[in-house]
Amino acid sequence: MKINQYAGVAVGCLFLLSLTVADAQKTLSKEQTAVEARLRALDAEWSAAAAAKDVDKTVSYYSKDAIVLPPNAPPATTREAIHAQWKKDLEGMVNGSWTPTRVEVAKSGDMAFVSGRFQWTSKDASGKTVSDHGKYLEVWEKQADGSWKCGADCWNSDLPASP
Amino acid sequence: MKINQYAGVAVGCLFLLSLTVADAQKTLSKEQTAVEARLRALDAEWSAAAAAKDVDKTVSYYSKDAIVLPPNAPPATTREAIHAQWKKDLEGMVNGSWTPTRVEVAKSGDMAFVSGRFQWTSKDASGKTVSDHGKYLEVWEKQADGSWKCGADCWNSDLPASP
Repeated sequence: MKINQYAGVAVGCLFLLSLTVADAQKTLSKEQTAVEARLRALDAEWSAAAAAKDVDKTVSYYSKDAIVLPPNAPPATTREAIHAQWKKDLEGMVNGSWTPTRVEVAKSGDMAFVSGRFQWTSKDASGKTVSDHGKYLEVWEKQADGSWKCGADCWNSDLPASP
Repeated sequence: MKINQYAGVAVGCLFLLSLTVADAQKTLSKEQTAVEARLRALDAEWSAAAAAKDVDKTVSYYSKDAIVLPPNAPPATTREAIHAQWKKDLEGMVNGSWTPTRVEVAKSGDMAFVSGRFQWTSKDASGKTVSDHGKYLEVWEKQADGSWKCGADCWNSDLPASP
């Protein structure tokens, strides 16, 4: 009986350990791994489109009903508002880029978030060069045609607010 | 034959129309609708916990590996950093709340985003009362135990940056 009890405890421990490992690793399906790779590639393409000051291409990464939440401005929830926001941002940009650091994908492989870091150098209204860096959170959604588009996009600066 | 051709065109039109309607409405499963209701309720509870200046409860809505992206501060990617961020924010708060405006749920019902509006009145370092309002983007993830936790959280102000 004692041996059985020890065996029971050992099996219980192994079970708990397996749960912990599974939880820590968030074991991904092949599809989730493929989606992550695809979104990292898309996010890099997107950053390159912005660096090239291509407003139309930059805006094309958003879904038709996307919401864009830029700092120090109202949310942009129409195609026109999103285009206007990026036109303004890219006109003032000297150079800018972003890189994902974390990607997590839903089990169904139809939704994911991408978060990362950006750096952005721009000219302010007085012509002075201003360097900014910060972080972003994008939600990507698989569209009816199989393509992936960003459906929600929020970012902000790491730098202290001006006094 | 002509009648058959017209019928074919009509069926084709109805098919395209049904696709358009389905796309516009993003028809939700019962599970997705239930998750949306649950997350709206959780987001309201969360806002109430913050309004009550309950730091521990406020932080409890995040998953173990959550990333929190506050404006004008570095990202908080550890439990300790997230706690410190909210402690600071709630200490200075006079009153604050947030309300979701958009919720979208993955087909698998294990990931969703919640976006909405916040208002926040606080005392600054000099004791002056400052009113802020803005928007936020949260990604929620279903945990192994069936609970929902926020895995990524980003927000920013609508107000112009100080000159």
